[in-house]
Amino acid sequence: MSDEADIRAGEVAVALPETFDAGLYFIGRIRTPWKRREDCPKNARESEAVCTIEVEQRWVAGLVDVDNCSHLLILYWMHQARRDLVQQVPRHYGRPRGTFALRSPVRPNPIAASVVRLLGIEGARLSVIGLDCLDGTPLVDLKPYFASTDAVGEAVVGWHTEKQAH
Amino acid sequence: MSDEADIRAGEVAVALPETFDAGLYFIGRIRTPWKRREDCPKNARESEAVCTIEVEQRWVAGLVDVDNCSHLLILYWMHQARRDLVQQVPRHYGRPRGTFALRSPVRPNPIAASVVRLLGIEGARLSVIGLDCLDGTPLVDLKPYFASTDAVGEAVVGWHTEKQAH
Repeated sequence: MSDEADIRAGEVAVALPETFDAGLYFIGRIRTPWKRREDCPKNARESEAVCTIEVEQRWVAGLVDVDNCSHLLILYWMHQARRDLVQQVPRHYGRPRGTFALRSPVRPNPIAASVVRLLGIEGARLSVIGLDCLDGTPLVDLKPYFASTDAVGEAVVGWHTEKQAH
Repeated sequence: MSDEADIRAGEVAVALPETFDAGLYFIGRIRTPWKRREDCPKNARESEAVCTIEVEQRWVAGLVDVDNCSHLLILYWMHQARRDLVQQVPRHYGRPRGTFALRSPVRPNPIAASVVRLLGIEGARLSVIGLDCLDGTPLVDLKPYFASTDAVGEAVVGWHTEKQAH
């Protein structure tokens, strides 16, 4: 995965640290209709597909009260992504940008964060709308989404706004 | 930290898996005015304190273009939290709730997600408003916040709304 050959012109890689600082447990899997990266929607709002979050039996008791949340923040592990690029050239943007200015899965800790609408829960399985990841993606966390602290309607990403204006 | 004695009546612990499934790099530290857990604001909107995110030198080149984001999604590691509770009794709520219905730092993967307003960047240091964590908290990720996919103003957390109505 961290092959030099995968780097596009203008991308910058760094040496990764020799050790990890903390460990994650995968607490479930995400089931989606997308089996290959190129099939995934470009972002989650592009698709109304219903996806399924399967929580491991060990953690199912943690789902109590989740059913009265309209939306959840889902953290998941982008297991196919390399971790050493600090500047990268997204396919559709054409010039290098800092990794932390992008939502690309390629980042030192490939954890994605997506807001989903919860349709329902049956046992260990949640039906949701709003994911764009590969089938089988490991689940890292589920959190209630609070509009009071998580929703900032006026937020602006300058480079993205400029691009859309052209 | 995972001492039985820390469990309140009604809380439920599970046995943690024997191995981790993935590793995290801490990519920096968060500087805040709060040195003890009991000093931290109850949530980030309660404080207008300016906090500083210090990114490690290795990753600084990843900050290019971040300066034109008005808001960022910050992921950080709640390093003082136990990880084995699936049901817990938050201090102010009085009855057990599922871990995944709470934003408590106590969860299998103690990664917090906070939306911050970016005031400015100087080299490796970002000045932001909107954090509520301990001074020295390890940084896991920075992402641009996109209102189009991250902001859901109408989201509701039922148990919380009911509580406020009483």
